Amino acid sequence: MSAWIITIGDEILVGRILNWNAYWLAKRLTSLGVQVKKIVCVPDDIDVISKTIIDAINDKVDFIFTTGGLGPTPGDVTTEAICKATGRELILNSKALEFIRKRYDELYRLGLVDSPQINEARKKMAKTPEGADVIYNDVGVAPAIILDTDLATIIALPGVPSEAMYLFEKIVPRIRTRKKVAVVEDYIDVEDESALAKILSEIRREYPDVSIKTYPIGYGQKRMRVVAIAEDLKKAEAALKTFINRIRKD
Amino acid sequence: MSAWIITIGDEILVGRILNWNAYWLAKRLTSLGVQVKKIVCVPDDIDVISKTIIDAINDKVDFIFTTGGLGPTPGDVTTEAICKATGRELILNSKALEFIRKRYDELYRLGLVDSPQINEARKKMAKTPEGADVIYNDVGVAPAIILDTDLATIIALPGVPSEAMYLFEKIVPRIRTRKKVAVVEDYIDVEDESALAKILSEIRREYPDVSIKTYPIGYGQKRMRVVAIAEDLKKAEAALKTFINRIRKD
Repeated sequence: MSAWIITIGDEILVGRILNWNAYWLAKRLTSLGVQVKKIVCVPDDIDVISKTIIDAINDKVDFIFTTGGLGPTPGDVTTEAICKATGRELILNSKALEFIRKRYDELYRLGLVDSPQINEARKKMAKTPEGADVIYNDVGVAPAIILDTDLATIIALPGVPSEAMYLFEKIVPRIRTRKKVAVVEDYIDVEDESALAKILSEIRREYPDVSIKTYPIGYGQKRMRVVAIAEDLKKAEAALKTFINRIRKD
Repeated sequence: MSAWIITIGDEILVGRILNWNAYWLAKRLTSLGVQVKKIVCVPDDIDVISKTIIDAINDKVDFIFTTGGLGPTPGDVTTEAICKATGRELILNSKALEFIRKRYDELYRLGLVDSPQINEARKKMAKTPEGADVIYNDVGVAPAIILDTDLATIIALPGVPSEAMYLFEKIVPRIRTRKKVAVVEDYIDVEDESALAKILSEIRREYPDVSIKTYPIGYGQKRMRVVAIAEDLKKAEAALKTFINRIRKD
Protein backbone atom coordinates (compact mmCIF):
# COMPACT_ATOMS: atom_id res chain seq x y z
CA MET A 1 0.00 0.00 0.00
CA SER A 2 1.47 3.36 -1.02
CA ALA A 3 0.73 7.08 -0.93
CA TRP A 4 1.82 10.56 -1.97
CA ILE A 5 1.40 13.50 0.37
CA ILE A 6 0.73 16.84 -1.33
CA THR A 7 0.83 19.84 1.03
CA ILE A 8 -0.74 22.90 -0.51
CA GLY A 9 0.04 26.47 0.52
CA ASP A 10 2.53 29.26 -0.07
CA GLU A 11 3.29 29.49 3.67
CA ILE A 12 5.44 26.34 3.38
CA LEU A 13 7.22 27.54 0.24
CA VAL A 14 8.20 30.91 1.76
CA GLY A 15 9.52 29.20 4.91
CA ARG A 16 6.93 30.73 7.24
CA ILE A 17 6.12 27.41 8.89
CA LEU A 18 7.61 23.95 9.26
CA ASN A 19 5.74 21.28 7.30
CA TRP A 20 4.20 19.67 10.36
CA ASN A 21 1.32 18.18 8.35
CA ALA A 22 3.64 16.19 6.07
CA TYR A 23 5.63 15.00 9.11
CA TRP A 24 2.80 13.52 11.15
CA LEU A 25 0.97 12.22 8.06
CA ALA A 26 4.16 10.41 6.98
CA LYS A 27 4.63 9.04 10.50
CA ARG A 28 0.99 7.91 10.83
CA LEU A 29 0.84 6.39 7.34
CA THR A 30 4.10 4.48 7.93
CA SER A 31 2.74 3.13 11.23
CA LEU A 32 -0.39 1.98 9.36
CA GLY A 33 1.76 0.11 6.82
CA VAL A 34 1.45 2.63 4.00
CA GLN A 35 4.65 3.46 2.12
CA VAL A 36 4.93 7.21 1.47
CA LYS A 37 6.62 7.41 -1.93
CA LYS A 38 6.82 11.19 -2.26
CA ILE A 39 5.97 14.40 -0.40
CA VAL A 40 5.39 17.47 -2.57
CA CYS A 41 4.73 21.04 -1.38
CA VAL A 42 3.00 23.19 -3.97
CA PRO A 43 1.56 26.72 -4.07
CA ASP A 44 -2.18 27.56 -4.11
CA ASP A 45 -2.28 27.20 -7.89
CA ILE A 46 -4.91 25.07 -9.64
CA ASP A 47 -2.65 23.99 -12.50
CA VAL A 48 0.31 23.05 -10.29
CA ILE A 49 -1.88 21.12 -7.81
CA SER A 50 -3.79 19.33 -10.58
CA LYS A 51 -0.56 18.42 -12.39
CA THR A 52 0.91 17.05 -9.14
CA ILE A 53 -2.19 14.90 -8.52
CA ILE A 54 -1.85 13.50 -12.05
CA ASP A 55 1.84 12.75 -11.36
CA ALA A 56 0.78 10.83 -8.22
CA ILE A 57 -1.86 8.87 -10.15
CA ASN A 58 0.76 8.01 -12.77
CA ASP A 59 3.03 6.77 -9.97
CA LYS A 60 0.27 4.16 -9.26
CA VAL A 61 -0.14 4.93 -5.56
CA ASP A 62 -3.19 3.72 -3.61
CA PHE A 63 -3.77 7.00 -1.76
CA ILE A 64 -3.18 10.66 -2.54
CA PHE A 65 -3.41 12.87 0.54
CA THR A 66 -3.66 16.62 0.17
CA THR A 67 -3.63 19.15 2.99
CA GLY A 68 -4.75 22.78 2.68
CA GLY A 69 -6.76 24.87 0.25
CA LEU A 70 -10.27 23.78 1.35
CA GLY A 71 -11.30 27.10 2.95
CA PRO A 72 -13.73 29.82 1.82
CA THR A 73 -11.31 32.28 0.17
CA PRO A 74 -10.62 32.58 -3.58
CA GLY A 75 -7.05 31.36 -2.89
CA ASP A 76 -8.40 27.98 -1.75
CA VAL A 77 -8.45 25.93 -4.94
CA THR A 78 -7.72 22.33 -3.93
CA THR A 79 -11.22 21.03 -4.72
CA GLU A 80 -11.19 22.58 -8.18
CA ALA A 81 -7.71 21.17 -8.77
CA ILE A 82 -8.94 17.65 -7.87
CA CYS A 83 -11.80 18.11 -10.37
CA LYS A 84 -9.36 19.23 -13.04
CA ALA A 85 -7.02 16.27 -12.39
CA THR A 86 -9.78 13.64 -12.40
CA GLY A 87 -12.16 15.12 -14.98
CA ARG A 88 -14.98 15.33 -12.45
CA GLU A 89 -17.59 18.09 -12.25
CA LEU A 90 -17.55 20.43 -9.25
CA ILE A 91 -20.99 20.11 -7.66
CA LEU A 92 -22.78 21.42 -4.60
CA ASN A 93 -22.61 18.47 -2.19
CA SER A 94 -25.77 18.37 -0.09
CA LYS A 95 -24.13 16.37 2.72
CA ALA A 96 -21.24 18.86 2.85
CA LEU A 97 -23.69 21.78 2.87
CA GLU A 98 -25.59 20.20 5.78
CA PHE A 99 -22.28 19.72 7.68
CA ILE A 100 -21.26 23.34 7.09
CA ARG A 101 -24.66 24.69 8.18
CA LYS A 102 -24.52 22.59 11.34
CA ARG A 103 -20.97 23.68 12.06
CA TYR A 104 -21.66 27.42 11.64
CA ASP A 105 -24.70 27.01 13.91
CA GLU A 106 -22.39 25.51 16.55
CA LEU A 107 -19.73 28.21 16.07
CA TYR A 108 -22.42 30.92 16.28
CA ARG A 109 -23.80 29.49 19.53
CA LEU A 110 -20.22 29.40 20.87
CA GLY A 111 -19.83 33.09 19.94
CA LEU A 112 -16.96 32.36 17.53
CA VAL A 113 -18.65 33.81 14.42
CA ASP A 114 -20.98 36.81 14.00
CA SER A 115 -23.61 34.99 11.98
CA PRO A 116 -24.70 31.43 11.18
CA GLN A 117 -25.70 32.59 7.69
CA ILE A 118 -24.34 30.53 4.75
CA ASN A 119 -23.06 33.14 2.27
CA GLU A 120 -21.31 32.41 -1.05
CA ALA A 121 -17.84 32.13 0.54
CA ARG A 122 -19.07 29.60 3.09
CA LYS A 123 -21.10 27.72 0.48
CA LYS A 124 -17.88 27.34 -1.54
CA MET A 125 -16.68 24.80 1.06
CA ALA A 126 -19.68 22.58 0.21
CA LYS A 127 -18.64 22.22 -3.44
CA THR A 128 -16.90 18.90 -4.05
CA PRO A 129 -15.96 16.69 -7.01
CA GLU A 130 -18.91 14.62 -8.25
CA GLY A 131 -19.04 11.27 -6.44
CA ALA A 132 -17.00 12.44 -3.45
CA ASP A 133 -17.82 11.59 0.14
CA VAL A 134 -17.29 14.10 2.97
CA ILE A 135 -16.34 13.83 6.65
CA TYR A 136 -17.74 16.19 9.28
CA ASN A 137 -15.19 18.65 10.68
CA ASP A 138 -15.98 19.40 14.32
CA VAL A 139 -12.60 21.06 14.88
CA GLY A 140 -12.81 23.63 12.06
CA VAL A 141 -15.43 24.02 9.32
CA ALA A 142 -14.36 22.66 5.91
CA PRO A 143 -15.21 18.93 5.66
CA ALA A 144 -12.57 16.45 4.52
CA ILE A 145 -13.17 15.08 1.02
CA ILE A 146 -12.73 11.44 -0.03
CA LEU A 147 -12.83 10.65 -3.72
CA ASP A 148 -12.46 7.06 -4.87
CA THR A 149 -11.33 6.80 -8.48
CA ASP A 150 -10.45 3.67 -10.44
CA LEU A 151 -6.77 4.41 -9.94
CA ALA A 152 -6.34 6.00 -6.51
CA THR A 153 -8.29 7.28 -3.53
CA ILE A 154 -7.83 11.03 -3.13
CA ILE A 155 -8.23 12.32 0.44
CA ALA A 156 -8.28 16.10 0.89
CA LEU A 157 -7.70 17.37 4.43
CA PRO A 158 -7.79 20.98 5.68
CA GLY A 159 -4.45 22.76 6.21
CA VAL A 160 -4.84 23.58 9.92
CA PRO A 161 -2.91 20.73 11.64
CA SER A 162 -5.48 20.13 14.43
CA GLU A 163 -8.26 19.78 11.83
CA ALA A 164 -6.17 17.64 9.50
CA MET A 165 -5.08 15.28 12.29
CA TYR A 166 -8.59 14.94 13.68
CA LEU A 167 -10.13 14.21 10.28
CA PHE A 168 -7.32 11.82 9.35
CA GLU A 169 -8.07 9.68 12.42
CA LYS A 170 -11.73 9.52 11.34
CA ILE A 171 -10.61 8.21 7.93
CA VAL A 172 -8.13 5.60 9.28
CA PRO A 173 -10.68 2.72 9.25
CA ARG A 174 -10.93 3.07 5.46
CA ILE A 175 -7.13 2.74 5.12
CA ARG A 176 -6.72 -0.32 7.34
CA THR A 177 -8.57 -2.61 4.95
CA ARG A 178 -5.79 -2.70 2.37
CA LYS A 179 -2.41 -4.41 1.98
CA LYS A 180 0.34 -3.18 4.30
CA VAL A 181 4.06 -2.56 4.27
CA ALA A 182 6.38 -3.61 7.12
CA VAL A 183 9.35 -1.57 8.31
CA VAL A 184 11.99 -3.13 10.60
CA GLU A 185 15.29 -1.67 11.75
CA ASP A 186 18.37 -2.32 13.88
CA TYR A 187 21.78 -0.85 14.69
CA ILE A 188 25.22 -2.33 13.92
CA ASP A 189 28.91 -1.44 14.16
CA VAL A 190 30.74 -1.77 10.84
CA GLU A 191 34.44 -2.46 11.30
CA ASP A 192 35.26 -2.65 7.61
CA GLU A 193 33.41 0.04 5.63
CA SER A 194 34.54 -1.38 2.31
CA ALA A 195 32.70 -4.68 2.89
CA LEU A 196 29.40 -2.86 3.27
CA ALA A 197 28.62 -2.28 -0.41
CA LYS A 198 29.42 -5.89 -1.32
CA ILE A 199 27.22 -7.43 1.39
CA LEU A 200 24.42 -4.95 0.69
CA SER A 201 24.43 -5.97 -2.99
CA GLU A 202 24.30 -9.67 -2.01
CA ILE A 203 21.31 -9.11 0.27
CA ARG A 204 19.49 -7.12 -2.40
CA ARG A 205 19.99 -9.99 -4.82
CA GLU A 206 18.90 -12.63 -2.29
CA TYR A 207 15.85 -10.66 -1.10
CA PRO A 208 14.53 -8.90 -4.20
CA ASP A 209 11.21 -8.00 -2.46
CA VAL A 210 12.96 -6.21 0.39
CA SER A 211 14.31 -2.68 0.27
CA ILE A 212 17.28 -2.58 2.64
CA LYS A 213 19.31 0.53 3.43
CA THR A 214 22.00 1.73 5.84
CA TYR A 215 22.38 5.11 7.51
CA PRO A 216 25.62 6.25 9.18
CA ILE A 217 25.34 7.69 12.69
CA GLY A 218 28.01 10.39 13.04
CA TYR A 219 31.61 10.57 11.86
CA GLY A 220 33.68 7.57 10.87
CA GLN A 221 30.45 5.74 10.00
CA LYS A 222 31.18 2.82 12.34
CA ARG A 223 27.76 2.96 13.93
CA MET A 224 24.97 2.37 11.41
CA ARG A 225 21.22 2.16 11.39
CA VAL A 226 19.88 -0.55 9.05
CA VAL A 227 16.30 -0.35 7.77
CA ALA A 228 14.45 -3.07 5.83
CA ILE A 229 11.09 -2.43 4.15
CA ALA A 230 8.87 -5.09 2.54
CA GLU A 231 5.23 -6.05 2.14
CA ASP A 232 5.98 -9.26 4.04
CA LEU A 233 7.16 -8.63 7.64
CA LYS A 234 8.92 -12.04 7.80
CA LYS A 235 10.92 -11.31 4.63
CA ALA A 236 11.97 -7.88 5.95
CA GLU A 237 13.09 -9.45 9.25
CA ALA A 238 14.98 -12.27 7.49
CA ALA A 239 16.84 -9.86 5.20
CA LEU A 240 17.75 -7.62 8.13
CA LYS A 241 19.00 -10.55 10.21
CA THR A 242 21.05 -12.06 7.36
CA PHE A 243 22.62 -8.67 6.61
CA ILE A 244 23.57 -8.03 10.24
CA ASN A 245 25.04 -11.54 10.70
CA ARG A 246 27.19 -11.19 7.59
CA ILE A 247 28.47 -7.75 8.60
CA ARG A 248 29.37 -9.03 12.10
CA LYS A 249 31.13 -12.08 10.71
CA ASP A 250 33.08 -9.93 8.26
CA MET B 1 14.67 34.29 -9.51
CA SER B 2 13.19 30.90 -8.64
CA ALA B 3 14.13 27.54 -7.15
CA TRP B 4 13.01 24.01 -6.32
CA ILE B 5 14.08 22.32 -3.11
CA ILE B 6 14.54 18.55 -3.34
CA THR B 7 15.11 16.84 0.02
CA ILE B 8 16.46 13.34 -0.38
CA GLY B 9 16.11 10.61 2.22
CA ASP B 10 13.69 7.96 3.44
CA GLU B 11 13.78 9.39 6.99
CA ILE B 12 11.47 12.22 5.88
CA LEU B 13 9.09 9.86 4.02
CA VAL B 14 8.66 7.53 7.00
CA GLY B 15 7.99 10.47 9.34
CA ARG B 16 11.11 9.95 11.44
CA ILE B 17 12.09 13.61 11.30
CA LEU B 18 10.54 16.98 10.50
CA ASN B 19 11.79 18.46 7.24
CA TRP B 20 13.88 21.13 8.91
CA ASN B 21 16.17 21.50 5.86
CA ALA B 22 13.30 22.44 3.53
CA TYR B 23 11.98 24.89 6.12
CA TRP B 24 15.11 26.95 6.66
CA LEU B 25 16.15 26.72 3.00
CA ALA B 26 12.71 28.06 1.97
CA LYS B 27 12.97 30.83 4.58
CA ARG B 28 16.52 31.81 3.60
CA LEU B 29 15.82 31.69 -0.15
CA THR B 30 12.68 33.83 0.27
CA SER B 31 14.66 36.38 2.29
CA LEU B 32 17.24 36.48 -0.53
CA GLY B 33 14.49 37.19 -3.08
CA VAL B 34 14.30 33.70 -4.54
CA GLN B 35 10.80 32.30 -5.13
CA VAL B 36 10.57 28.65 -4.05
CA LYS B 37 8.18 27.10 -6.57
CA LYS B 38 8.10 23.56 -5.22
CA ILE B 39 9.50 21.40 -2.41
CA VAL B 40 9.75 17.67 -3.13
CA CYS B 41 10.84 14.93 -0.72
CA VAL B 42 12.06 11.79 -2.45
CA PRO B 43 13.63 8.50 -1.36
CA ASP B 44 17.31 7.54 -1.87
CA ASP B 45 16.55 6.25 -5.36
CA ILE B 46 18.61 7.32 -8.38
CA ASP B 47 15.70 7.17 -10.84
CA VAL B 48 13.27 9.11 -8.66
CA ILE B 49 15.86 11.80 -7.78
CA SER B 50 17.02 12.14 -11.38
CA LYS B 51 13.42 12.37 -12.67
CA THR B 52 12.64 15.06 -10.06
CA ILE B 53 15.68 17.11 -11.12
CA ILE B 54 14.50 16.88 -14.74
CA ASP B 55 11.01 18.05 -13.63
CA ALA B 56 12.64 21.05 -11.93
CA ILE B 57 14.69 21.87 -15.03
CA ASN B 58 11.51 21.66 -17.14
CA ASP B 59 9.87 24.10 -14.69
CA LYS B 60 12.57 26.61 -15.79
CA VAL B 61 13.84 27.47 -12.31
CA ASP B 62 17.17 29.24 -11.79
CA PHE B 63 18.30 27.03 -8.90
CA ILE B 64 17.74 23.43 -7.90
CA PHE B 65 18.76 22.74 -4.31
CA THR B 66 19.11 19.17 -3.09
CA THR B 67 19.86 18.09 0.47
CA GLY B 68 21.06 14.63 1.49
CA GLY B 69 22.60 11.61 -0.20
CA LEU B 70 26.20 12.88 -0.48
CA GLY B 71 27.74 10.52 2.09
CA PRO B 72 30.01 7.46 1.72
CA THR B 73 27.41 4.65 1.86
CA PRO B 74 25.90 2.83 -1.15
CA GLY B 75 22.51 4.41 -0.25
CA ASP B 76 23.91 7.88 -1.00
CA VAL B 77 23.14 8.36 -4.69
CA THR B 78 22.47 12.08 -5.17
CA THR B 79 25.64 12.75 -7.19
CA GLU B 80 24.92 9.87 -9.56
CA ALA B 81 21.33 11.07 -9.90
CA ILE B 82 22.54 14.56 -10.88
CA CYS B 83 24.79 12.95 -13.52
CA LYS B 84 21.87 10.92 -14.83
CA ALA B 85 19.59 13.98 -15.01
CA THR B 86 22.14 16.21 -16.74
CA GLY B 87 23.94 13.67 -18.92
CA ARG B 88 27.27 14.42 -17.24
CA GLU B 89 30.01 11.91 -16.47
CA LEU B 90 30.75 11.07 -12.82
CA ILE B 91 34.45 11.86 -12.36
CA LEU B 92 36.95 11.90 -9.50
CA ASN B 93 37.14 15.61 -8.61
CA SER B 94 40.69 16.44 -7.52
CA LYS B 95 39.60 19.51 -5.54
CA ALA B 96 36.95 17.46 -3.72
CA LEU B 97 39.51 14.72 -3.02
CA GLU B 98 41.90 17.30 -1.56
CA PHE B 99 39.09 18.69 0.66
CA ILE B 100 38.16 15.20 1.90
CA ARG B 101 41.80 14.28 2.65
CA LYS B 102 42.24 17.54 4.56
CA ARG B 103 38.99 17.03 6.47
CA TYR B 104 39.80 13.43 7.52
CA ASP B 105 43.24 14.62 8.66
CA GLU B 106 41.51 17.20 10.85
CA LEU B 107 38.96 14.66 12.17
CA TYR B 108 41.79 12.19 12.90
CA ARG B 109 43.75 14.82 14.82
CA LEU B 110 40.57 15.62 16.78
CA GLY B 111 40.19 11.91 17.60
CA LEU B 112 36.82 11.67 15.84
CA VAL B 113 37.85 8.95 13.35
CA ASP B 114 40.19 5.97 13.74
CA SER B 115 42.19 6.65 10.59
CA PRO B 116 42.90 9.47 8.14
CA GLN B 117 43.15 6.89 5.33
CA ILE B 118 41.04 7.56 2.20
CA ASN B 119 39.37 4.20 1.41
CA GLU B 120 36.88 3.55 -1.41
CA ALA B 121 33.84 4.65 0.64
CA ARG B 122 35.49 7.96 1.53
CA LYS B 123 36.76 8.44 -2.01
CA LYS B 124 33.16 8.10 -3.23
CA MET B 125 32.43 11.55 -1.75
CA ALA B 126 35.07 13.04 -4.11
CA LYS B 127 33.21 11.86 -7.21
CA THR B 128 31.21 14.69 -8.79
CA PRO B 129 29.51 15.46 -12.11
CA GLU B 130 32.00 16.67 -14.73
CA GLY B 131 32.32 20.46 -14.60
CA ALA B 132 31.08 20.77 -11.02
CA ASP B 133 32.63 23.04 -8.41
CA VAL B 134 32.88 21.99 -4.75
CA ILE B 135 32.75 23.85 -1.42
CA TYR B 136 34.84 22.77 1.58
CA ASN B 137 32.81 21.26 4.42
CA ASP B 138 34.43 22.11 7.75
CA VAL B 139 31.35 20.99 9.71
CA GLY B 140 31.05 17.46 8.26
CA VAL B 141 33.02 15.80 5.45
CA ALA B 142 31.14 15.65 2.12
CA PRO B 143 31.72 18.87 0.13
CA ALA B 144 28.75 20.76 -1.33
CA ILE B 145 28.50 20.47 -5.12
CA ILE B 146 27.64 23.33 -7.48
CA LEU B 147 26.88 22.47 -11.08
CA ASP B 148 26.08 25.25 -13.55
CA THR B 149 24.17 23.99 -16.56
CA ASP B 150 22.71 26.04 -19.42
CA LEU B 151 19.28 25.75 -17.84
CA ALA B 152 19.71 25.80 -14.06
CA THR B 153 22.32 25.81 -11.33
CA ILE B 154 22.16 22.62 -9.29
CA ILE B 155 23.41 22.96 -5.71
CA ALA B 156 23.76 19.72 -3.72
CA LEU B 157 24.05 20.11 0.06
CA PRO B 158 24.60 17.37 2.68
CA GLY B 159 21.57 16.17 4.64
CA VAL B 160 22.81 16.98 8.16
CA PRO B 161 21.16 20.38 8.89
CA SER B 162 24.25 21.99 10.51
CA GLU B 163 26.36 21.07 7.47
CA ALA B 164 23.70 22.10 4.97
CA MET B 165 23.13 25.48 6.66
CA TYR B 166 26.84 26.20 6.96
CA LEU B 167 27.56 25.35 3.31
CA PHE B 168 24.49 27.24 2.11
CA GLU B 169 25.79 30.45 3.72
CA LYS B 170 29.09 29.96 1.91
CA ILE B 171 27.18 29.74 -1.39
CA VAL B 172 24.94 32.79 -0.77
CA PRO B 173 27.26 35.26 -2.58
CA ARG B 174 26.68 33.31 -5.81
CA ILE B 175 22.90 33.65 -5.41
CA ARG B 176 22.83 37.38 -4.69
CA THR B 177 24.01 38.30 -8.18
CA ARG B 178 20.75 37.44 -9.88
CA LYS B 179 17.27 38.98 -10.19
CA LYS B 180 15.18 39.00 -7.03
CA VAL B 181 11.57 38.56 -5.96
CA ALA B 182 9.91 40.84 -3.39
CA VAL B 183 7.39 39.64 -0.80
CA VAL B 184 5.28 42.18 1.14
CA GLU B 185 2.40 41.52 3.51
CA ASP B 186 -0.11 43.18 5.80
CA TYR B 187 -3.18 42.36 7.91
CA ILE B 188 -6.77 43.58 7.39
CA ASP B 189 -10.24 43.07 8.81
CA VAL B 190 -12.76 42.07 6.15
CA GLU B 191 -16.31 43.13 7.11
CA ASP B 192 -17.96 41.79 3.97
CA GLU B 193 -16.52 38.42 2.94
CA SER B 194 -18.45 38.37 -0.30
CA ALA B 195 -16.67 41.50 -1.60
CA LEU B 196 -13.29 39.80 -1.24
CA ALA B 197 -13.36 37.68 -4.40
CA LYS B 198 -14.49 40.61 -6.54
CA ILE B 199 -11.81 43.03 -5.32
CA LEU B 200 -9.15 40.31 -5.52
CA SER B 201 -10.03 39.69 -9.17
CA GLU B 202 -9.85 43.45 -9.91
CA ILE B 203 -6.40 43.74 -8.35
CA ARG B 204 -5.16 40.69 -10.25
CA ARG B 205 -6.32 42.30 -13.50
CA GLU B 206 -4.80 45.69 -12.63
CA TYR B 207 -1.47 44.25 -11.45
CA PRO B 208 -0.80 41.27 -13.71
CA ASP B 209 2.85 41.01 -12.57
CA VAL B 210 1.87 40.69 -8.91
CA SER B 211 0.70 37.50 -7.21
CA ILE B 212 -1.65 38.59 -4.41
CA LYS B 213 -3.29 36.23 -1.96
CA THR B 214 -5.29 36.30 1.28
CA TYR B 215 -5.11 33.97 4.26
CA PRO B 216 -7.82 33.81 6.93
CA ILE B 217 -6.69 33.99 10.57
CA GLY B 218 -9.08 31.82 12.61
CA TYR B 219 -12.82 31.37 12.45
CA GLY B 220 -15.22 33.81 10.81
CA GLN B 221 -12.35 34.91 8.55
CA LYS B 222 -12.67 38.59 9.52
CA ARG B 223 -8.97 38.94 10.21
CA MET B 224 -6.87 38.24 7.12
CA ARG B 225 -3.23 38.23 6.15
CA VAL B 226 -2.60 39.61 2.66
CA VAL B 227 0.58 38.70 0.81
CA ALA B 228 1.82 40.24 -2.46
CA ILE B 229 4.73 38.76 -4.43
CA ALA B 230 6.39 40.37 -7.47
CA GLU B 231 9.80 40.87 -9.03
CA ASP B 232 9.35 44.63 -8.57
CA LEU B 233 9.04 45.63 -4.88
CA LYS B 234 7.21 48.86 -5.78
CA LYS B 235 4.57 46.99 -7.81
CA ALA B 236 4.02 44.50 -4.97
CA GLU B 237 3.62 47.38 -2.49
CA ALA B 238 1.25 49.28 -4.79
CA ALA B 239 -0.97 46.23 -5.36
CA LEU B 240 -1.08 45.49 -1.62
CA LYS B 241 -1.95 49.11 -0.76
CA THR B 242 -4.67 49.36 -3.42
CA PHE B 243 -6.20 46.08 -2.30
CA ILE B 244 -6.27 47.08 1.37
CA ASN B 245 -7.74 50.52 0.62
CA ARG B 246 -10.53 49.02 -1.47
CA ILE B 247 -11.37 46.41 1.17
CA ARG B 248 -11.48 49.08 3.90
CA LYS B 249 -13.69 51.38 1.79
CA ASP B 250 -16.05 48.53 1.00
